[in-house]
Formats: sequence, C-alpha cells, structure tokens
Amino acid sequence: MSLLVVGSIALDTIKTPFGKVKEALGGSATYFSMAAQHLTDVNLVAVVGKDFSKKHIHIFQEKGIDLSGLQISEGKTFRWTGEYGFDLNEAQTIETQLNVFQDFNPQIPVKYRYCDFVFLANIDPDLQMQVLDQVDSPKLVACDTMNYWIENKPDSLKRTIQRVDIVIINEAEARQLTKKPNLVKASREILSWGPKTLIIKQGEYGVLMFSDHSAFSAPAYPLEELYDPTGAGDSFAGGLMGFISNIGKFDENSIRKGIIMGSVMASFCVEAFTPKRLIDLDPQEIKGRFKEFKHLTFFEDLTEII
Amino acid sequence: MSLLVVGSIALDTIKTPFGKVKEALGGSATYFSMAAQHLTDVNLVAVVGKDFSKKHIHIFQEKGIDLSGLQISEGKTFRWTGEYGFDLNEAQTIETQLNVFQDFNPQIPVKYRYCDFVFLANIDPDLQMQVLDQVDSPKLVACDTMNYWIENKPDSLKRTIQRVDIVIINEAEARQLTKKPNLVKASREILSWGPKTLIIKQGEYGVLMFSDHSAFSAPAYPLEELYDPTGAGDSFAGGLMGFISNIGKFDENSIRKGIIMGSVMASFCVEAFTPKRLIDLDPQEIKGRFKEFKHLTFFEDLTEII
Repeated sequence: MSLLVVGSIALDTIKTPFGKVKEALGGSATYFSMAAQHLTDVNLVAVVGKDFSKKHIHIFQEKGIDLSGLQISEGKTFRWTGEYGFDLNEAQTIETQLNVFQDFNPQIPVKYRYCDFVFLANIDPDLQMQVLDQVDSPKLVACDTMNYWIENKPDSLKRTIQRVDIVIINEAEARQLTKKPNLVKASREILSWGPKTLIIKQGEYGVLMFSDHSAFSAPAYPLEELYDPTGAGDSFAGGLMGFISNIGKFDENSIRKGIIMGSVMASFCVEAFTPKRLIDLDPQEIKGRFKEFKHLTFFEDLTEII
Repeated sequence: MSLLVVGSIALDTIKTPFGKVKEALGGSATYFSMAAQHLTDVNLVAVVGKDFSKKHIHIFQEKGIDLSGLQISEGKTFRWTGEYGFDLNEAQTIETQLNVFQDFNPQIPVKYRYCDFVFLANIDPDLQMQVLDQVDSPKLVACDTMNYWIENKPDSLKRTIQRVDIVIINEAEARQLTKKPNLVKASREILSWGPKTLIIKQGEYGVLMFSDHSAFSAPAYPLEELYDPTGAGDSFAGGLMGFISNIGKFDENSIRKGIIMGSVMASFCVEAFTPKRLIDLDPQEIKGRFKEFKHLTFFEDLTEII
C-alpha cells in the first residue's frame, strides 16, 4: 500500500557534545520518509528553495521516494540551527529561517489522493486540515504537532485532531494541550476529541500508547553511542506508519508492532548525525533490532503461588 | 526462604498536591517489608525511639514480620518532612531529624545470620558492610544508596558495591556515581566493580536492568490516581527481593519476573499516602496487576517480510 507524508525538508546545522554538522539534510518529511521507505512506497509533499542541491534530491530518488509532490519555490530552503547538551534531551533552537517554508501551501498531486495512509508531520494545523481536504478517504491518518501550534492555534489544532486516527506527540505537549499533568488523564481527554489512538513520545524513555480500552508501553533502545537525537520522533512515526502501510492493518496488535518498528527506526536515527544511518539500513539490521526489543522487554508469566 | 532487610523506620510528614499526612509510618525498611511480606518471611533490622507507638509495632507483627532485630533506643524516632510538586517526581526535603537513627548500629540477631537473601536499604555504606560482616554466606545480597553517600563516602560505597550481587539505584545516582551521563556506560562501569546485576530506577518511566550480557526494561504502571510517591523505590525492592526469596532462584528470568513484581508493588504503593495500600493487598490484586504489566508490554514477534 502507499503512504503519504506532508512535512518539512530542512537544512540543519546541529551541534551536540559529540560533533556537529552544517546545512545537512533534515526536516520532518525527510526523517519520516527515510524510515518509512524500508517498509512501503512513500509519497512526499514538501517545499524546498532553488538552493536545494541535486545531491539531496538524489538521496530521495535513489530510495524510490515519489517526489511528484515536492515543490521547488523561488527562495531559500528552510534552515534550522540547534544545539544539544550532554543529556541530548531537548534541542535549544539557535536560529530558525523559515524561508520558502513560511508560504508552504501543500498541494496534493492527483496521483496521491487515493493514498491509503497519511502522515501529517508537524506543520500549521490549518495546513494539516487543508491536506485532509485534498485526500479521498484514506484508511488511516496520523498527525504530529508542536508546542508552537498548541500555544498559537489551539482551536485549529483541536479540529485537526478531531479528524485523525492517531495522534503522536511528546509528553510535554500532551500535558500542555490538555492542561493535565497526569498522562492517563491527558490521554483520556485527547481521545475524547475523536482519535482512536494516542501515542506519547517520552524521548530516551520510549513511548506510551493509549486507546480507549488499552495501554501499551515501549522502551527506547538503550544505546551506548548516541550522537544526535534530531529526527528521532519523525523516524519513529516513519517506522510506525511504514509498518502499518506494509501490512495494511491497524488493529491494536498491528499498531503495537508498528510502535516497536518506530522505536527501531528511532534507535538507528540517533546513532549518527543526519538521516544517513537510517537511509542505508538493511533488512537484517531492522529485523535484528526488532528482536532485541523483544529480548529487552520479555518476562515470563507469573505461575508461582503467592 | 527468608529475607533480611536492614534500613530505616521513620515517621513521615508529607505534603503532595493531593493531600498530606503527619508523622505517619514510613522509612525504607517499612516500605520494603510491607511489600515483601506478601511473598516471603521478612526479618527486619532497624531502630526506633521510645516514642514509637505500639499501634505501629502491631502493624508489623500482624503481617508476620519478625521484629527480633528491631532496636528500641532512648530518644526519638527518625522523622522526615518532605513535599512534592505536581509532577510528583522529586521530594523536596523540608526537615530531617535523624534522632536515634544517627547512632544506628545494626546488630543482626543470631537467628537471622543464615538468611538466604539480604537487602541493605539506603544507610551509611560502612553500616551496610558491617551487616555483611555479620551474615553467613547469603545466597544473594542487594543494596540501595543515595546521593548523600555518593558525595560523602564514595570509597566506602564502592567497597559495599563490590560485595553485593544486585545494586538498585536511581538514574541520577548512577550518573553521579560514575560521572558518565550515558546509562549504558554507567552500568558497564558499576558492573565492572563486581555486582552481577544493576537495576536503575527511573521513577514514572520504570526501571532498566543491566547484566554483563543483557538488558531489560520494565515500564511503570500508568496510574490515573497517584497520591504520594514516597516509598515507591523501597516497595519496588521489596517486591523484587520478596519474589526472589519466594521462588529461591535468581537466574536472569527470575530477576526479570522479580522486577515486574517490584513494579507491581511500587504501583500500589503510590496509590495512597503511607504504606497502607501495600499492607492490605490481597493475592488476587497482586496477580491481577502482574498480568496487566504483561498486557502493557506485549507485542507479537515480527513475521512480516520487510
């Protein structure tokens, strides 16, 4: 099946205690599609400027990512400069140059309109809805967002959330969005708006999934060498949605497996600067790490008499 | 089999956004033994003052906890006053009155000396070693500690750690003890000192276990109603060591199950002020929550072709 992603392509300048890169390929749609391409056909909608290099375009093309929806606009590509401290937990934004991303007006090519699965990466919720208006009854839609939209467009964001099946946000955002410090209560509130599934990202601690009748917890993979967390959340979403698109199912057990696949992709993402570790994964590496997640979480049933 | 715990008994005055208690029964040995007594015979070594009420003594006696090692000294019982904010993550200590605990000199009754399992709760590492000098080749010893001892008695603490099988500490302490921000590296360092197993407590995110060849991650139970986290870590240790003592085994699979049993006990502990929720649990509640942990972490193997 096919998977549509609408998000950003950026040139990232990043410094962590373990190294730095300058104007490297980044952005939510980039990380998402580089994870998802291992699992399904990816259709990408994003915008770049005239300065976006052919070399970068080739990286997408070589992986078979459909770029019919990539707009190349007059002006410069979106640039982000950020820095992480030793705990690698939260990026400090040094500079954001929105450039062509400021006037991004996502146009969904006709051939994408019957995509089975849609991921709305972190963009203006009004644009997320504009995307939904252009697609024809996808089987499943997921969205991400960020604190900026929670603060500045809460009503639009809530309307977007009402129209999606899976919301993927981090724990601070879940609390901010609902004004509830308890995550179980926050999840109940968000689910009451319409989505069937809420996935709360907890960084190095993994993710929590809530549905109306169930909860699932997946750890992050404990890595000894961790260089740059940029893109981990989008790689997670790419692994999850790529897996769902691969198997064409989204019952609870499929979503749980998808969450582990997302965690697998996020764990590879952070092992290097830029999406390069993700891009060239082979299926054996992916399957091997999935198996390691099984080992990491396995315990026997309680059979003892207590 | 039987389990020895050496730690504190305290009178806690606690305020959280959800309520408060004054001079309530607390302390590491209290929470530990109230969790462990559901699973095994507990022998307790601690000190209280002459002011410690008969009512509190009865709580231990009713649960069959052996108090031959309880010293009742001239003076007042250890008192602790603390406060938690909305996130309930870290206690702010308002006041500590060590009282009789200041001169605690653990004497292990002869009948305890052949205990199979020993837990050294958070006390001065020199006293922890003094306990080890008094017991006769236990099958397994675990210890806890705190930032105070890491700062003030690092050499003694390291000597204690060299003599135990399982170290149970929180993630900030693991980092502080090894000066390594990465937990995989920190665990490797601590394991190189001698213990076979390191268990890192991560509060609301659960625990991570490391051995020389394996890692295991257990979530915390996502609770909607959470009143007071005091004692959660000691309840965890009580569930873990109580389970190991119950089954008399400590291979990796048994330790993993013990960690889940510890997480079960911690999840009940925080549902109320004081250990009262823990004290009166029935076996069905314990088994039921263990099963819920299985559901919370379950995902199928990857069988799809990717």
